[in-house]
Amino acid sequence: MVKLYWAEDGGIPPGDRGLAYGDGLFETIRVDNGHAPMQAYHLDRMTQDAARLGISITRAELTAVFHQALQRYAESHAEDSLVLKLTLTRGAGGRGYRPAPGVQPNILVSYSSLPPLPDCRGVKVDFSRVPLTINPLLAGIKSLNRLEQVMAALELQGDVFEVLMANASGHIVEGTRTNLFVETSNGWLTPAAGSVAVAGVMRRYVLERLRAAGEPVKEGPVLPEDLLAEDCLGVYLTNSVLGVVPVRSLAGQDLPVTGRLATICGYTPTTE
Amino acid sequence: MVKLYWAEDGGIPPGDRGLAYGDGLFETIRVDNGHAPMQAYHLDRMTQDAARLGISITRAELTAVFHQALQRYAESHAEDSLVLKLTLTRGAGGRGYRPAPGVQPNILVSYSSLPPLPDCRGVKVDFSRVPLTINPLLAGIKSLNRLEQVMAALELQGDVFEVLMANASGHIVEGTRTNLFVETSNGWLTPAAGSVAVAGVMRRYVLERLRAAGEPVKEGPVLPEDLLAEDCLGVYLTNSVLGVVPVRSLAGQDLPVTGRLATICGYTPTTE
Repeated sequence: MVKLYWAEDGGIPPGDRGLAYGDGLFETIRVDNGHAPMQAYHLDRMTQDAARLGISITRAELTAVFHQALQRYAESHAEDSLVLKLTLTRGAGGRGYRPAPGVQPNILVSYSSLPPLPDCRGVKVDFSRVPLTINPLLAGIKSLNRLEQVMAALELQGDVFEVLMANASGHIVEGTRTNLFVETSNGWLTPAAGSVAVAGVMRRYVLERLRAAGEPVKEGPVLPEDLLAEDCLGVYLTNSVLGVVPVRSLAGQDLPVTGRLATICGYTPTTE
Repeated sequence: MVKLYWAEDGGIPPGDRGLAYGDGLFETIRVDNGHAPMQAYHLDRMTQDAARLGISITRAELTAVFHQALQRYAESHAEDSLVLKLTLTRGAGGRGYRPAPGVQPNILVSYSSLPPLPDCRGVKVDFSRVPLTINPLLAGIKSLNRLEQVMAALELQGDVFEVLMANASGHIVEGTRTNLFVETSNGWLTPAAGSVAVAGVMRRYVLERLRAAGEPVKEGPVLPEDLLAEDCLGVYLTNSVLGVVPVRSLAGQDLPVTGRLATICGYTPTTE
């Protein structure tokens, strides 16, 4: 049975494995006017990721926590648009790295205000100097082990919105907080689920919408030259809080920007 | 200026980046009869690792925290032998992964009782099925991103003391909580500092002692066949709380065990 903690009541006890080892998961869920359009995708992912790590929690327990949180904050918060954060940990106890058998998970709930949306005409992006390493066993999991993303985010300067990280093979995998879609003359390209650090819920949504629209989509390696090629039709970053973000400039090179992906997806969160 | 929190007073505030992203470091320091023989090595490492991550703390601040902790627990604890744990985080604040400029670090202090020492006649060890991924930028840092070690530690069953993890090239790098030394007919072999996930303080100490004793030492790749070869003279695991631990059986194969490394090191912690 998961134990629920509220950030405003002091948070999770100090012996928790989430702090000790990053032994847990998190979701940041956009809530607009009391409604979270991506709710099911977030709760799906956290349930699946928890199963992969062996953290015992059910979808029903998570759903109950989510509704409790929505109710608590929508009632107490001045406006009912916010970002809800769920931090699920394996709990406390064990001998060092080895969890105690039957350890019970903890969940910490908090919220923050909505961030400003990026410029819909496109954002400036650079390449990161921080290499991205992906353990095949942990690929795609939105775990609390995010030091590589923190180190890359330290490179963000001025009006650079995001930096793109490459793996050891030189493939461009994702941004610090975004997944990557490229429109090529042969259709859409995005790194495969097994090769990403975080498989974003917006990535799943965009893939579903592209396929539903009959667009050709390939999940496979993205090379720097794919992004900077003459025939690149557009580069897009996805994030469940920010939606589909077009890239207008990459490493100083201008890129074409269209609203096509946002139109296909029919989903662009607004701060209205 | 670092802010100090004691585990028994409730721990670190919920917005801390240590829990959110594993954005921090930890040390577990063995204290015997009120004295920590590896104190300087632990404080050196934490200072250096903090500098690599851009967490602003000085050696003098850490030393002051360490002495406060020793005084508090040595006075209040029934016995003055224990394991002291320092968890240093970047602090709270920032926009997502990106830390706020000038963020002030937090440090959480806790302790636990000394663990039982492993059998001095040697321990049973296996190979892990969890691959170890090392980001060159973070190699050796004892950060709070330890999910790979947790997943590998879940494989520990029965009387298996440790599992050894291999990198993508198939080199054997380290155990979940130990570094690796092999005695070959050509001298001592241990993976290079730039290739390990955690560069243990005991690893540093053992290397210094081997060199001081005029022993030939090579830092380089260790292959499974190096460990299981006919002419392997011994395999040893090092850990600052447990000391030098000889391996008597690896993946079901018996290995020679001698007390030579412990003798050279002149350091075997006891629970006396």
